[in-house]
Amino acid sequence: MQSAGARWVDALQYSKWNRERLQELDDGGLSCVHVTLATWEDARETLLALGRWNSLARENADLVAIVRSVAELREANDAGRVGIILGTQNSSPFEDSLDLVQAFHAAGMRIAQLTYNTQNSAAGGCWDDPDGGVTQHYGRNLIREMNQVGMLVDLSHSGGRSCLDAIAASEAPVAITHGNPAEFVGDSVQLAVRNRSNAVLREIADCGGVVGLSTYGRIAPNGAACTPADFADMAAWTVELLGIDHVGIGTDLYLGHDNSSVHWWRAGRWARQPAVPITDDARFPEWLDTPVKFGNFDAALADKGFKAAEREAILGGNWLRLFEQVFGG
Amino acid sequence: MQSAGARWVDALQYSKWNRERLQELDDGGLSCVHVTLATWEDARETLLALGRWNSLARENADLVAIVRSVAELREANDAGRVGIILGTQNSSPFEDSLDLVQAFHAAGMRIAQLTYNTQNSAAGGCWDDPDGGVTQHYGRNLIREMNQVGMLVDLSHSGGRSCLDAIAASEAPVAITHGNPAEFVGDSVQLAVRNRSNAVLREIADCGGVVGLSTYGRIAPNGAACTPADFADMAAWTVELLGIDHVGIGTDLYLGHDNSSVHWWRAGRWARQPAVPITDDARFPEWLDTPVKFGNFDAALADKGFKAAEREAILGGNWLRLFEQVFGG
Repeated sequence: MQSAGARWVDALQYSKWNRERLQELDDGGLSCVHVTLATWEDARETLLALGRWNSLARENADLVAIVRSVAELREANDAGRVGIILGTQNSSPFEDSLDLVQAFHAAGMRIAQLTYNTQNSAAGGCWDDPDGGVTQHYGRNLIREMNQVGMLVDLSHSGGRSCLDAIAASEAPVAITHGNPAEFVGDSVQLAVRNRSNAVLREIADCGGVVGLSTYGRIAPNGAACTPADFADMAAWTVELLGIDHVGIGTDLYLGHDNSSVHWWRAGRWARQPAVPITDDARFPEWLDTPVKFGNFDAALADKGFKAAEREAILGGNWLRLFEQVFGG
Repeated sequence: MQSAGARWVDALQYSKWNRERLQELDDGGLSCVHVTLATWEDARETLLALGRWNSLARENADLVAIVRSVAELREANDAGRVGIILGTQNSSPFEDSLDLVQAFHAAGMRIAQLTYNTQNSAAGGCWDDPDGGVTQHYGRNLIREMNQVGMLVDLSHSGGRSCLDAIAASEAPVAITHGNPAEFVGDSVQLAVRNRSNAVLREIADCGGVVGLSTYGRIAPNGAACTPADFADMAAWTVELLGIDHVGIGTDLYLGHDNSSVHWWRAGRWARQPAVPITDDARFPEWLDTPVKFGNFDAALADKGFKAAEREAILGGNWLRLFEQVFGG
């Protein structure tokens, strides 16, 4: 069980949200979840998603609150609410406009990926081989604008060179909110290109960032058959590489979606057929197929020998330190 | 003077249009002009520009007609109207959506650049050093979709590698509607990166495409001081390299715009300041600073020794052949 004062953070969930699902966050003992507003959506579509989230949070104010800073998160938690951080998995909501970065920050967005799998005007994606890196003009301007407003640069689906370029360009620490080391391959070689080289992981840690380890079967050790021990082994391996301060959790749990969502994520409007075919096998291991079971991470890490303070750092403390540093007051 | 039956084509003008300016096309003896709807504009903004063009053409139906094929162009010309071909200098109107390619084609768009100066989700720009080429996923799909509907791939502002990639990927011939050989440098080294290597020019010709030579001072021989003889020398040099069938005219004339337009073209919404500073010196040579003077091309080429049939090919015939092949019926 969670020790008093510990705050558990899941740095990425992309579920279809409703009251039952919000209740599951609370039941799982979570203090904070980063949720996704967009993958390929444009400004207007993302604004609608952001508006829906505000409406949902208002209707379920006994359970959750959208938070814009760690101070607001603490207030929410003290009032018994799970803090929700709004983010996007692609820079598509910004439509190549620096002013839209300002606008979405003003509306509460705090985390944004530069790109989702494939090259865009800002950076290259993990499906690009090789990826072209952060673009010389807009990409660098975008990172500077995000630094200025206090929006976390998330490199989860970017290409390897883009990760290194972004870390070099960013004045603030950056994150992989959800992704695993390339040392581990999931049950989809095509999707596990998202897992990160040691070089990228070390640079993330050196800049003060955090890597959120995921139980998504496509990229987790042993795929959807990943056991708590497999996961704890990966966590120990990553802590060995990066130190205890730079490892967190980002499950990538996406509950309630059918294959039409997966089609959208893999093809957007830019392909008639997904570049990576859709399969129907299990996507998450049974011991972590709902946020209600988030405590299984704590148990797995304890079994591996992680002390309470180390588990608190991995399960939430590291994210809170990074969020506080990047989001500001 | 234009010989009977000759049809002069300017493959790029980007002026602020009104009745006087349309009258100038007619006064200059032009049969056809390719005009620009967008540089950084999105789908909705481009649709508005397309709607405005339809309204303008309706109000000035004695002077111009928007045409979607060479057959429609001939009809327009036979009725004493200048044919207007609608295009975009960037793929931004498509918003990474293959269906929007279909939609804009249905609305009459027939020419589209993949990118305007800087990297986007489809290709790299001429300001990228080096450019990343046509993107593996969306970029290739976009070219296939354009081929399918009959929309000409225009590489005028793309990067060198993107040109070669696009030529290889496209089943139809492609064009540089406005641009010069890299052998000639205008009065802006920064902007003359748009001029093309011999390797790219040869590939354009080999695929059946056309290169539209421009009098824009930034990229023309001797800059805005370019004389008719300088221009004719460049035309002769290019015909020597590519053969008579692959050289045309694309003036890039943009009349009626002030520096706020130039700021938009050079910075869009993606930069606070233009990457290339804006200067106020002359942009076009006096002998070709209005479409009324289009006949000066004919005189310059005649002085250089080009025969009537050759001048007709360069001044229009080559574009018509390419348009007929790519646009279809």
